[in-house]
Amino acid sequence: MTAHVSLITLGVADVARATAFYEALGFKLSKTASQPEVSFFQAGAVVLALWGRDAQKEDANAEALWTGNGGIVIAQNVGSEHDVDAVMARAETAGARILRPTGKTFWGGYNGYFADADGHVWEIAHNPFWELADGSVKLPD
Amino acid sequence: MTAHVSLITLGVADVARATAFYEALGFKLSKTASQPEVSFFQAGAVVLALWGRDAQKEDANAEALWTGNGGIVIAQNVGSEHDVDAVMARAETAGARILRPTGKTFWGGYNGYFADADGHVWEIAHNPFWELADGSVKLPD
Repeated sequence: MTAHVSLITLGVADVARATAFYEALGFKLSKTASQPEVSFFQAGAVVLALWGRDAQKEDANAEALWTGNGGIVIAQNVGSEHDVDAVMARAETAGARILRPTGKTFWGGYNGYFADADGHVWEIAHNPFWELADGSVKLPD
Repeated sequence: MTAHVSLITLGVADVARATAFYEALGFKLSKTASQPEVSFFQAGAVVLALWGRDAQKEDANAEALWTGNGGIVIAQNVGSEHDVDAVMARAETAGARILRPTGKTFWGGYNGYFADADGHVWEIAHNPFWELADGSVKLPD
C-alpha cells in the first residue's frame, strides 16, 4: 500500500459561507456526498472537505493544536502565468484576502497567495519546471 | 480550468527530521525534485512538500496566521479497517503522536488520528460508502 493523500478537511466557522466561497472559486460540490454540516468537493484527484471547526477539533482529539493557520499551504498548480492571474482575480472577487499579489518567485516560477475567511492559506502557482497533467503534478523519481 | 488541489506544503522545524518521518510512513521522496531546504513526495495524485516553517511564513506573507495546527486535517483513505490499523501502527513506530486510536466512527466508518512532530494532524480512514481508486476518492456528482 503506497502512502498518499486523498482528502483535506478545512475547519471553518460557517460551513454555508465557506461552501459558497469555494463554489465561487470553481470547486465542484458533490451534492450527493455533502450534508448541511459538511461539504465535499472533487478538487482534482483529491477531495476538499469543509466542516465545522469545533466538530473537527473534537473528532481529531487535538484541542491544543487547533489554532491559527497551522503552517500549511494548499496549492493549485496551473499551466501559465496568465492562469495564476485569473485564479487570483477570481479569489479576490469571491472575497479572499490577498496575502501576496501575483509575481515572479525566487525559484523561477510565478505565484500569488490568498487566505479564505477562516485563515486557510492557498498558493496559486505556475512552475515551468514541473510536469502538470490533468491538474496533478507528476514528480520525477 | 477546473479548480483543484495539487500540492500541500507542511511548514516544519527541521526538514531532515520531517523527511525521515514521512519516508518511514511510506511516502516516496523525489530525489530529483528535492533539495536540502525542501522535500517533495509524490503522495498519490498530489505532491506533499516539507519546507522550513519560517521560510514558508515569509513566502506566504502570512505571519499572523502562522500558529498551531490551523484546523486542517490531511487524510489518507484506505481500503479496509485492517489497512487503517496498519498505517496507524506504522505511524506510531515512526514516532507519531497518536491523537485518537483506531475505532469505529459516528459516520459508519473506521479511523484513527495522529500528529507529526510539528503538530500537523493526519486522519487514516476507511469509508465503506466511498469509491476509492488508486488512492483517490471519486465523489458522486
